[in-house]
Amino acid sequence: MKDDTDDVVVLAADRLTSAAGVFTKSRFAGASVRLSQSNAADGHAQAVAVVSKNANVATGEQGEWDAANLAQRVAELVGCEPDQVLVGSTGVIGVPYPEGKVDAYFGRLAGAAEGTVPIAERTDDLVARRGGPTGVGDVDDLDHGGRKGLWTTDAAAAAAAIMTTDTHPKTASASAGAATVVGIAKGSGMIEPDMATMISVMTTDAEIAPDRLDAMLRRVCDVTFNALSVDTDTSTSDMVVMLANGAAGPVDEAELEAALGAVSLDLTRQLAFDGEGAETLIVVTVNEARDDAQAKRVAKAIVNSPLVKTAVHGCDPNWGRVAMAIGKCSDETDIDPERIRIRFGDQEVYPTPATPEALAELEAYLASDEVLISVDLGIADGSFTVYGCDLTDQYVRINADYTT
Amino acid sequence: MKDDTDDVVVLAADRLTSAAGVFTKSRFAGASVRLSQSNAADGHAQAVAVVSKNANVATGEQGEWDAANLAQRVAELVGCEPDQVLVGSTGVIGVPYPEGKVDAYFGRLAGAAEGTVPIAERTDDLVARRGGPTGVGDVDDLDHGGRKGLWTTDAAAAAAAIMTTDTHPKTASASAGAATVVGIAKGSGMIEPDMATMISVMTTDAEIAPDRLDAMLRRVCDVTFNALSVDTDTSTSDMVVMLANGAAGPVDEAELEAALGAVSLDLTRQLAFDGEGAETLIVVTVNEARDDAQAKRVAKAIVNSPLVKTAVHGCDPNWGRVAMAIGKCSDETDIDPERIRIRFGDQEVYPTPATPEALAELEAYLASDEVLISVDLGIADGSFTVYGCDLTDQYVRINADYTT
Repeated sequence: MKDDTDDVVVLAADRLTSAAGVFTKSRFAGASVRLSQSNAADGHAQAVAVVSKNANVATGEQGEWDAANLAQRVAELVGCEPDQVLVGSTGVIGVPYPEGKVDAYFGRLAGAAEGTVPIAERTDDLVARRGGPTGVGDVDDLDHGGRKGLWTTDAAAAAAAIMTTDTHPKTASASAGAATVVGIAKGSGMIEPDMATMISVMTTDAEIAPDRLDAMLRRVCDVTFNALSVDTDTSTSDMVVMLANGAAGPVDEAELEAALGAVSLDLTRQLAFDGEGAETLIVVTVNEARDDAQAKRVAKAIVNSPLVKTAVHGCDPNWGRVAMAIGKCSDETDIDPERIRIRFGDQEVYPTPATPEALAELEAYLASDEVLISVDLGIADGSFTVYGCDLTDQYVRINADYTT
Repeated sequence: MKDDTDDVVVLAADRLTSAAGVFTKSRFAGASVRLSQSNAADGHAQAVAVVSKNANVATGEQGEWDAANLAQRVAELVGCEPDQVLVGSTGVIGVPYPEGKVDAYFGRLAGAAEGTVPIAERTDDLVARRGGPTGVGDVDDLDHGGRKGLWTTDAAAAAAAIMTTDTHPKTASASAGAATVVGIAKGSGMIEPDMATMISVMTTDAEIAPDRLDAMLRRVCDVTFNALSVDTDTSTSDMVVMLANGAAGPVDEAELEAALGAVSLDLTRQLAFDGEGAETLIVVTVNEARDDAQAKRVAKAIVNSPLVKTAVHGCDPNWGRVAMAIGKCSDETDIDPERIRIRFGDQEVYPTPATPEALAELEAYLASDEVLISVDLGIADGSFTVYGCDLTDQYVRINADYTT
């Protein structure tokens, strides 16, 4: 799409899977997102293709044609119907895919796959443990660089192929009885003229009905990916999709949801810690709220406050900025400063002031890789935890130094 | 309060004035804000005192006592009732005023004023043109530094005394018939462990009933100060208060509102341009919205987007980020990307792409002191304009380098 790095990945199963997806709510949602929403609506899919370095957003009719063509090419490769393919895309906005490159690449990829290793063998292997084979390649040059254009069962290689300016590939896995959940995700690097788009693909060999998978994925996303904020800017390309091929048979659903939750939380924390320019993972927990929704609004106000983020970056236990962020939730009229408690890590800082010795320890704590800010609102028993990162000079440089 | 810079200002009239105020909605609103709201409720006041370097926020009962004591001391100086005094305070959160300093200062100020220039003379002068005399001083040392502790009719000196880390004092004035409107404002510097608190005091010698003044101030604030955002963080200490002493008699109210609007807009633009670390004033106008409220929500989403702000800082005409910011207003379901137009200055960039020559010119335009981003939503005729600034490395350094 742009340079000689990997920029396309295809995850495919050897059969139709239960499929579910959670997509960006952006009014400028891209052609890939809209096609995938439509194709996932019946709860089934056989493959997911993700293209990086180009978001295919605000590209008009050409963009819709390109998304449909990508699904068509993947369907031909995998041997399924085009509407059984989900597609994602992330990168520059407003520029169509380079003409002809996708067609040329899939032609070469199909030939290379057929000529080297039969798809069926590796499909068996992957269906057993990873939910489908993975085709990793670069649109420009199929044979360039060793592993490019080759089939792989390596989730890290798949995760690497969907990176834009992420500093490392993000994968996670967990077991649920005889089944495994494997997820990959990308997001929040920024060399492209692009927002911190977040894409995650989850696979499992557990057997689960589409409607139950959909409900499970939504519940898990609400407390993991949807609890993540690097910079408040919602992407036009965000999506989390999941395929369940059933090869491991049915498993306990609570156990499967726990495994999916563990994988999603692991990826969410990796995304926050790899936020643009980030040096510190910030976890904010709000307890004793009216309900979980209020706890989430207050927690988001804190984790998104540039003054809180810069205070953490400067290792300053400045609880006044946390108080300010709580205070700006002005619609929450049951919030009363006199019932609030604020802690950094285990150390209360409001209303009981920290001692000078405790403040010195807090400065060291704030210099660590992960900082917890917790707030008790003293209203009821609602609670929520969100994930973010500090705001650094590097965030500004990454996002200001690019010129289209 | 903290160092030897001016940190207290008293604006007083020689009679009870019509008074109106607009205050922060923060749930952590400070003691000064709460006292002023109460004292302004009857539509009358005679003086406004503002203390900088200490916000008197989250200071409990001590803070309430300190705010009431400040009003009491000002009332004694001016010769009015304590509930005819409005007080503001801005600076560090969670630390009470230094014990005894306010009392000691007002004692010395009263003596100095009586011993040097009679209040009455300058009161006449100020009531005629500026709405009241101005006492500028430093709590620590009344006689230090020449102009400190002296009465002044200089609005710039008054504006300087309420600065925290503003880089220059902010004043504006306009005429309405025989009357004048003079305003001062502070906000958005950041050496203190503090958010970008915004305080503005307006005076006029026009005669106007309190309820009409209150309604006028609210209408004007909605399209000026409330259309300003430096970093999305709502202060615990924001307030705009206005005194009208009536010395110039009644004037045409539309003319007065226009003058007040001009002064408020001028101060709003000064505040945005002096935002923390800011190098560029960003003006965002949204037209053709369903209504003005929708236009404001979309405009705020654009001006507050860190990716839009960094794009302007990097002189990058990256309209994809503007599209993203519009898109994230996901509750605005009548927003349709196909009806949207986006312009930088006069140059359309979406849907009609700018030519390479136009893009080169846009890079130069984005390097100027003021950048206009305008969006047509193509829905109806609602419109709104908001004011902000770019996000620079300096913002992060200013806010990260402080340690309590």
